[in-house]
Amino acid sequence: MKLKPLADRVIVKLVEAEETTKGGIILAGAAKEKPEVAEVLAVGPGGMVDGKEVVMTVKVGDKVITSKYAGTQVKLDGEEVTIVRQNDILAIVE
Amino acid sequence: MKLKPLADRVIVKLVEAEETTKGGIILAGAAKEKPEVAEVLAVGPGGMVDGKEVVMTVKVGDKVITSKYAGTQVKLDGEEVTIVRQNDILAIVE
Amino acid sequence: MKLKPLADRVIVKLVEAEETTKGGIILAGAAKEKPEVAEVLAVGPGGMVDGKEVVMTVKVGDKVITSKYAGTQVKLDGEEVTIVRQNDILAIVE
Amino acid sequence: MKLKPLADRVIVKLVEAEETTKGGIILAGAAKEKPEVAEVLAVGPGGMVDGKEVVMTVKVGDKVITSKYAGTQVKLDGEEVTIVRQNDILAIVE
Amino acid sequence: MKLKPLADRVIVKLVEAEETTKGGIILAGAAKEKPEVAEVLAVGPGGMVDGKEVVMTVKVGDKVITSKYAGTQVKLDGEEVTIVRQNDILAIVE
Amino acid sequence: MKLKPLADRVIVKLVEAEETTKGGIILAGAAKEKPEVAEVLAVGPGGMVDGKEVVMTVKVGDKVITSKYAGTQVKLDGEEVTIVRQNDILAIVE
Amino acid sequence: MKLKPLADRVIVKLVEAEETTKGGIILAGAAKEKPEVAEVLAVGPGGMVDGKEVVMTVKVGDKVITSKYAGTQVKLDGEEVTIVRQNDILAIVE
Repeated sequence: MKLKPLADRVIVKLVEAEETTKGGIILAGAAKEKPEVAEVLAVGPGGMVDGKEVVMTVKVGDKVITSKYAGTQVKLDGEEVTIVRQNDILAIVE
Repeated sequence: MKLKPLADRVIVKLVEAEETTKGGIILAGAAKEKPEVAEVLAVGPGGMVDGKEVVMTVKVGDKVITSKYAGTQVKLDGEEVTIVRQNDILAIVE
Repeated sequence: MKLKPLADRVIVKLVEAEETTKGGIILAGAAKEKPEVAEVLAVGPGGMVDGKEVVMTVKVGDKVITSKYAGTQVKLDGEEVTIVRQNDILAIVE
Repeated sequence: MKLKPLADRVIVKLVEAEETTKGGIILAGAAKEKPEVAEVLAVGPGGMVDGKEVVMTVKVGDKVITSKYAGTQVKLDGEEVTIVRQNDILAIVE
Repeated sequence: MKLKPLADRVIVKLVEAEETTKGGIILAGAAKEKPEVAEVLAVGPGGMVDGKEVVMTVKVGDKVITSKYAGTQVKLDGEEVTIVRQNDILAIVE
Repeated sequence: MKLKPLADRVIVKLVEAEETTKGGIILAGAAKEKPEVAEVLAVGPGGMVDGKEVVMTVKVGDKVITSKYAGTQVKLDGEEVTIVRQNDILAIVE
Repeated sequence: MKLKPLADRVIVKLVEAEETTKGGIILAGAAKEKPEVAEVLAVGPGGMVDGKEVVMTVKVGDKVITSKYAGTQVKLDGEEVTIVRQNDILAIVE
C-alpha cells in the first residue's frame, strides 16, 4: 500500500534525529523542536499546477530540507509521512 | 438522485475509520479527529477554471487524501459528502 | 419585473427546507442553519470577467448547491433571492 | 456641473426607498439599512484597467443593484452619489 | 522647484473647502472631514507599471475626485500636495 | 566600499532636514517625523523582476520622495542608507 | 556534506559582527540585533519558479545584504546557515 502524490506534491518522511546528527546536519534548535531533514518517498507528476508548468526536480531517495510547518501529515502503515508541494522543499542535502 | 460537480470540483465521501485502519492508513491523531481518507464519488468536467485550464486526474472510486478543512459538507440522501476542488486532493491511496 | 445578472453572476432562490428534505438532500446541520440548495432563476452572459473568459454552465431551473455565505441577498417582489458568481456554485443536483 | 468617471467606474445614485418599495424590490432589511437599488448617472470609458480589457455593459439610466459597501460617496450639487467599479454592479433591474 | 511624478503617479492639491462649496461639489461629511476634490498639478509618464501598460488619462489642471486615504502627502514650498496613483482617481469634475 | 543594489532596487540616503527646509520641500509633520526626501546613491540594473520587465528610470544623484516606511535601512561606512524598490519612489524633486 | 539549494534559493551564512565592523558596514542597531551582511555559500539553478523565469545573479562568495527575517535557518556541520530566495537579497557589498 502506498500514496501516489498528485500534481506538484511530494511525500517525505522525517529522518530520525539520531541519524540527522550523525550526518552533521540539524536544524537550529533541533534538540527542542523536531528536525526538518526528510527523505523523499514519492514524487508527483508535476505538469500544469495552478496554470503554471511545474517540472519536478527532486527524486525518490533525496534527503531534503523543507519549509517549517509546510505540508499535511498522514500516517502510512503506522509511519508518519508529510505531503508537501515541491516549492516547499528548500534544498537537497548531498 | 445525485450531485454533479461543476468545474474542478470533486465529491468525496469519507471512508469509515474502521475501514481506514484496516487499510493501514490513518491520519495523525485520527483516533481523536475525523480521518481524511475519502472515496471519490463524482468528478467535475474540469476545463477553464479561473482562467486556467484544469485537467481532472482523479476518477470515481479513487481513495484520496484531502487537505484538512477543505471543501463544503453536504448531506446526500442521508449520507454526508464533501465537495472539494481537485487541487485540495493531495494524494491517491493505492 | 426581474433582475438581469451581469457578467458571471447567477440569481438563485433557496428551495424551501420542506422541499429539500423531500428531495433527500439537506446540508449538514440544515435543521439549525438555512439549507443551501437553491434554484437558478437567471444567469448572466459570462464573457470576459476580471480578464478571464467565463463560460456559463448552469441554466435557469437548475437546482444547485452554493458555497455557504456566498453572494448578496436581495428582495425581489417580496421574495428573497441571492446573487452569486457562477464560481460559487459547487454542484448541480440531478 | 457633472462628474466624468474614469476607467471602469460608474456613478450611481440610490433610488429613494419609497420608489424602491413601489417597484417591489428592496434589499433584505432595507427598512433598517439603506436600499441598494441605484440609477446609473454616468459610465466610464472602460478600456485597459489593471492590465485587463474592460467593456462597459451598463448604460446611463439603468437601474442596478450594487455590492453592499462598494464605492465612494460624493455629494454632487447637494445630491449624494456613489462611484463604483462596474464589477461591483451585480444585476440590472428590468 | 517642482515634483516630477514617476510611472503612473499623479500629484494633486486639494481644492479649498470654500471653493469646493462654490462649485457645488463636496464630499459627504466634508464639513467635518477634509474634502477630496483636488486639482492635478503634475502627471507621471505612465508606461509599464507592475508589468501592465498604463496610459495616463488625466492632465494638469483637471479637477478630480480621489479615493479617500489614497496617496502620500508631501509639503511643497509650503503647500501640501498629495501623490496618488492614477488608479486612485475616480472621476473628473467638469 | 559600496553597495550594488540588485534587480529593481535603489539605494537612497535621506537628505538632512536642514537642507530639505532650504530647498523648500518638507514632508507634512517633518519637524516631528524624519523627512523623506532622499538622494539616490546607487541604482540596480532592473530587468526581469517577479516575471515583469522593469526599466530603471531614476539615476544616481536624483533627489526623490519615497513611500513612507518603505525599504530596509543599512549603515554604510557610518552613514545610514535605505534600500528601496524603484516602485517605492514616488517622484523626483527638480 | 553540503546543501544544494533548489530553484531560486540561495544559501548564505552571516558574516561575524567583528568582520562586518572591520568592513565598515553594519546594519542600523546591529550592536543590539544580529547583522545581516552574509556570504553566499550556494546558489540554486534558477529557471521557472512559480511560472516565472528567474535568472540567478548572485554567485558563491558574494557578500550580500538580505531582507530582515527572510529565509529559513539550518545548522550545517555545526554552522548556522540561512536559505533565502534570491529576491530577498537586496544588494551586493563590493
